[in-house]
Amino acid sequence: MRGLYHDHAASRVVLRDDLPPPEPQLGEARIRVSLAGVCTTDLEIVKGYVPFTGVLGHEFIGVVDAAPGRDDLEGTRVVGEINAVCGSCDACASGRPRHCQARTVLGIQDRDGCLAEYTTLPVANLHVVPDSVSDEAAVFVEPLAAAFRIGEQLDLRRFASVLVMGDGKLGLLVAMALRSSCAGGADVLLSGRHDEKLAVAAGAGVTTVRADALARVGFDLVVECTGRSGGLTEALSRVRPMGTIVLKSTVAGDTTAPLSAGVVNEVTIVGSRCGPFAPALAALADGSVDPTPLITGRVGLSEGDRALARAREPGALKILVDPAC
Amino acid sequence: MRGLYHDHAASRVVLRDDLPPPEPQLGEARIRVSLAGVCTTDLEIVKGYVPFTGVLGHEFIGVVDAAPGRDDLEGTRVVGEINAVCGSCDACASGRPRHCQARTVLGIQDRDGCLAEYTTLPVANLHVVPDSVSDEAAVFVEPLAAAFRIGEQLDLRRFASVLVMGDGKLGLLVAMALRSSCAGGADVLLSGRHDEKLAVAAGAGVTTVRADALARVGFDLVVECTGRSGGLTEALSRVRPMGTIVLKSTVAGDTTAPLSAGVVNEVTIVGSRCGPFAPALAALADGSVDPTPLITGRVGLSEGDRALARAREPGALKILVDPAC
Repeated sequence: MRGLYHDHAASRVVLRDDLPPPEPQLGEARIRVSLAGVCTTDLEIVKGYVPFTGVLGHEFIGVVDAAPGRDDLEGTRVVGEINAVCGSCDACASGRPRHCQARTVLGIQDRDGCLAEYTTLPVANLHVVPDSVSDEAAVFVEPLAAAFRIGEQLDLRRFASVLVMGDGKLGLLVAMALRSSCAGGADVLLSGRHDEKLAVAAGAGVTTVRADALARVGFDLVVECTGRSGGLTEALSRVRPMGTIVLKSTVAGDTTAPLSAGVVNEVTIVGSRCGPFAPALAALADGSVDPTPLITGRVGLSEGDRALARAREPGALKILVDPAC
Repeated sequence: MRGLYHDHAASRVVLRDDLPPPEPQLGEARIRVSLAGVCTTDLEIVKGYVPFTGVLGHEFIGVVDAAPGRDDLEGTRVVGEINAVCGSCDACASGRPRHCQARTVLGIQDRDGCLAEYTTLPVANLHVVPDSVSDEAAVFVEPLAAAFRIGEQLDLRRFASVLVMGDGKLGLLVAMALRSSCAGGADVLLSGRHDEKLAVAAGAGVTTVRADALARVGFDLVVECTGRSGGLTEALSRVRPMGTIVLKSTVAGDTTAPLSAGVVNEVTIVGSRCGPFAPALAALADGSVDPTPLITGRVGLSEGDRALARAREPGALKILVDPAC
């Protein structure tokens, strides 16, 4: 089969057409990928962020093609959680399975990803997609779940004012998710540096501001999605004393920031990664979040390496990859 | 009167004997200082950490000498919270008075401190000291309250394993406070680099380890009290996924740390500063914390500048200053 393959040692991405279709183990399903998305993490992996060799990609919607012992699943439209866990380590036993010490992660750690014709995941990771949710919306479930993670970690009712910093894919999805989660409650503001991306957010009903025109400080909650190493320093200057900063950006290398200000002001900084699929799917199904305006390009898998180049272009948001083309 | 005076512009500390005794305003009390303590923050102020000019010092026990309209307080033994607040700004109105935007802070910000014969504070800041608590113990209430702040910010019952990093004054008080707060619960370990300080902690019943001999990782809670800029990096390597780091050190300048690890592991980092006097006084009164073994020196105010030098000596813990000598 065809797949977009990253060789960490050679620091190279190639479109291969000689990959064996993956064989699902007992408890796993093989999924024919209908659509996959390119994430900034994929671009970071290509830059060497983690030493992953294999098929890239962890955002997909597909149809179950084979599931040993679970024939009932064949033909089902699914999305899938990306952490495949052991179920028995300390983290799993303590109710923190996404932090399983023996986990494999789709397209990121010891498990081939979904920028390919087929992928596999444990059946337990799959979520059935309602018919009312299009493939183009469902492919956003994984990053949208990461946005909904914030509501799982924090009681969002505590925050009257929220600043989301960064107008990339994640910032937009976080702003949209928080807007839907805090309905009737918090005032959510998205700041960014790209007029065309801010326009997409505004079109989705998000209140936006140019980062260089933002004078306001004292937000109850600041979500750092800029992907820049200076993001935390700015977040510390925007949050109120005893306020909360959520860090979503994973930046290769060290971060430098005036953390003594965070001590004096007793700021809480919360790292936030993968999230729950159920509320993300529900938000797509009831229409409270529509991520499809974020799609700025669609390419066939046969020109898959172009997908990464497109995702790097200024102004690009979500690039989708169609394995059928 | 005599007082240890810091001139920020001249970057100089002098013992002055020409200071006018402070006049308490309505709502304030003048306190004759019985004993004062030297804090690392005093040493940082001398290094230029904050632009404070005035009498240094914010740790004391004393006797009320004058309190306009509150004659009943005269002669009372008291300690005092160091943030003098306005009561009407957003932070005060929101129940965060220690973060008052117009606050003055004893010996730190716009208010003369207590390394002097007399000092003043709002009456509302004072706490009466029970007779059973000696001056030598009561002078620790302010830093011990900062240690008890952690139990105000976090539900300590959630943590089964706690690492306190740093065997300075604050680290020792934090370990002692957590040990008394988590009684029957968490296992509290103190790591440090100074055998003589670790011995003081061990003498107080704290379990200790040389930092360079500590192999264990995966603590539920790590409290960073090292005062070193590399402390956060080590704390991130010691805490378990979804664990909590409390930052107590205020380090001049920026902190550099691999915060992406904190994002992937979804670590929560909590800045922590001043704390509640009531539980600190209660712990001294019931004997569950005895800080007096931390006293490594006592000097008269007349040689007050020597107090700072003594506090800087390797192996030094708490240096007390006696204004009567």
